Amino acid sequence: MSSVPVPPQPATATTHPFEGDPVFDLHVGGKMQVAATAPLKDAADLSLAYTPGVALVCEAIAADPSMTQHYTWVPNTVAVVSDGTAVLGLGDIGPAAAMPVMEGKAVLFKQFGGVDAVPICLDTTDTEQIIETVARLAPSFGGVNLEDISAPRCFEIEDRLKEMLDIPVFHDDQHGTAVVALAALKNALKLTGREPATTRVVISGAGAAGVAVAKILLEAGITDLAVTDRKGVLHSSRGDLTPVKRALAEMTADKTGRTGSLGDVLAGADVYLGVSGGTVPEEDVARMAPDSIIFGLANPTPEVHPDVAHKYARVVATGRSDFPNQINNVLAFPGIFRGALDVHATGITEGMKLAAANALAELVGDDLSETYIIPSPFDERVPGAVSSAVAEAARRDGVARR
Amino acid sequence: MSSVPVPPQPATATTHPFEGDPVFDLHVGGKMQVAATAPLKDAADLSLAYTPGVALVCEAIAADPSMTQHYTWVPNTVAVVSDGTAVLGLGDIGPAAAMPVMEGKAVLFKQFGGVDAVPICLDTTDTEQIIETVARLAPSFGGVNLEDISAPRCFEIEDRLKEMLDIPVFHDDQHGTAVVALAALKNALKLTGREPATTRVVISGAGAAGVAVAKILLEAGITDLAVTDRKGVLHSSRGDLTPVKRALAEMTADKTGRTGSLGDVLAGADVYLGVSGGTVPEEDVARMAPDSIIFGLANPTPEVHPDVAHKYARVVATGRSDFPNQINNVLAFPGIFRGALDVHATGITEGMKLAAANALAELVGDDLSETYIIPSPFDERVPGAVSSAVAEAARRDGVARR
Repeated sequence: MSSVPVPPQPATATTHPFEGDPVFDLHVGGKMQVAATAPLKDAADLSLAYTPGVALVCEAIAADPSMTQHYTWVPNTVAVVSDGTAVLGLGDIGPAAAMPVMEGKAVLFKQFGGVDAVPICLDTTDTEQIIETVARLAPSFGGVNLEDISAPRCFEIEDRLKEMLDIPVFHDDQHGTAVVALAALKNALKLTGREPATTRVVISGAGAAGVAVAKILLEAGITDLAVTDRKGVLHSSRGDLTPVKRALAEMTADKTGRTGSLGDVLAGADVYLGVSGGTVPEEDVARMAPDSIIFGLANPTPEVHPDVAHKYARVVATGRSDFPNQINNVLAFPGIFRGALDVHATGITEGMKLAAANALAELVGDDLSETYIIPSPFDERVPGAVSSAVAEAARRDGVARR
Repeated sequence: MSSVPVPPQPATATTHPFEGDPVFDLHVGGKMQVAATAPLKDAADLSLAYTPGVALVCEAIAADPSMTQHYTWVPNTVAVVSDGTAVLGLGDIGPAAAMPVMEGKAVLFKQFGGVDAVPICLDTTDTEQIIETVARLAPSFGGVNLEDISAPRCFEIEDRLKEMLDIPVFHDDQHGTAVVALAALKNALKLTGREPATTRVVISGAGAAGVAVAKILLEAGITDLAVTDRKGVLHSSRGDLTPVKRALAEMTADKTGRTGSLGDVLAGADVYLGVSGGTVPEEDVARMAPDSIIFGLANPTPEVHPDVAHKYARVVATGRSDFPNQINNVLAFPGIFRGALDVHATGITEGMKLAAANALAELVGDDLSETYIIPSPFDERVPGAVSSAVAEAARRDGVARR
């Protein structure tokens, strides 16, 4: 009568609606669970891990909140927060339907970053409500990864939470994509003998990813950059720009005076970076500069299919695992959070993102080639290289608390 | 380059401030972690568990939300939610300091109920904010366990959330205590040859536990019941009662006309049940009926020390593990949620709580004695007996969805 009870198992059905489909078979019961790390085999264990022992730990934290870092799981946790409005390419499918993606993200956090992530899908799409809800959850987590929240709300939500909270807040659809795209582009430029300051870049797509990619490219020294949406190049002369797009125009095409359609600015461009979906006409691709670089990152259908891209470009990357040079966020976010949590960073700076991109780019080293500009997600060196670089940058930027 | 990366481990310090203390040593890094249940050993696994495969699961749930029950971890999860205002006997120590208790609760949920619980400590003590925050989190969880939220806010928070949500919401400080106390009392009455309808009961303490214990005793057939707070018996003739206490007075002492001090109503009482803290004077204990029953549940100091209680009472119980007859919530909440989640219950009914109490009481069976009125938390039969009884009651009460 004093042995450990065998935990009752959930009463899972023996059959399920999509039985036999390997995707659904794998998803039965979800993809994650909670596990205890403290033993509870008898009353003595219980008195240490729970009452009365635990009261000592509570009192220590009440007296000195920094003790949270030693004696709880909080410093190694990340809330993966979504409102289900921009899930994969599926759009606004709601919080319940977003859960399998957030669970998947949590599994990736664990496997590639050793981070304990908890999927939180919110029953609200209101900007203020999302902000206040995440802020109220903050004492429970070491960081916040925003995920699949549609633009432009995602920008304000991230900016405001970064101001309010003293833990890392990171919208992966923006910055994860930006970091990995920059890493790949650095190597593509190197391979084609280009310098950032003299390279002409066109980004199609001014949503979450497009805005973040544009900003990180500017930080990395790209100066001739045009961003397009469905109506053409973002330029302040247009009367239809949102505040976010207007700010982006001022940082990009306003400085070069480039205007017109995507086709117009692709003529002579060195780099095309698609985060828009849709298809770029082949005749526009054909007008790019020699030895051009084409990243078509839409999934599952790249803006320029690799077969077409290779007719005109020297370096081609996609978001897909079945072509070389996959731009996959999993290369970045686990290591970025690992590094940030390890130094108890108060946030994730631009310097930390650039450091992550540099670390990824450098791993390719002398093996650099047209089909190898970015490491594989299963390259064992990736998480450690990214987290070390990020932790070091956090210290350099003065946001490390240990 | 295609093997699974070894997850980087958190950079934990080799030393910690309270090194050498067994409680603190056990708490280093917290008491729980997240674990993946889906393999991710190569790109093929990634394409099933994450993109592109996961999109099929998202679409299935978007088309039919009940698919959440099959293909996510949600149906087996519980949010353990606190605002840190009434933690153990420590009081209002805030959300950060409450975390070790909530983690401990999560570990107990897993070990004794097979439930994946996530500790959520909120950075607000405002009733409305707590309610709206938990409601927004609801799509992410199969149930909500409210914990260590001070009275009287805990009553409104639980009541309102029960109305708003279609998943179990359960304030364990109230109902877990009530269920286990009722189970023990049933056996104590049996042992002393009493019937509920003719037993005189006094409860000291009109906080979360006192209110819930009083209500479940009334449901179980106790009719002569007086509840006291620091100013004496709750009775409508008093001008100082809160709405909650007034309602309780109307259900209890108003019906018998008993008034006065705790000492006054203890004279001749069959049962004393303390959930108040403080100490009952020995001369008041001495005036109880012969063969009386004394439950002093305050921790770590019972309202009547067992050495004193045994001088006058036949059956004595406490909240402590170092005396016989421990009234421990872990006997109830894991099995209650296990049963409720197994049938996808829309809530936890009074019938489900009474069923849990009956199941616990019946486990004692023919071994019933003065020192064995309630099973041990480490009795292997407990979780299964409670969860089966609760699931059956959920079906009987029409709240089971499967």
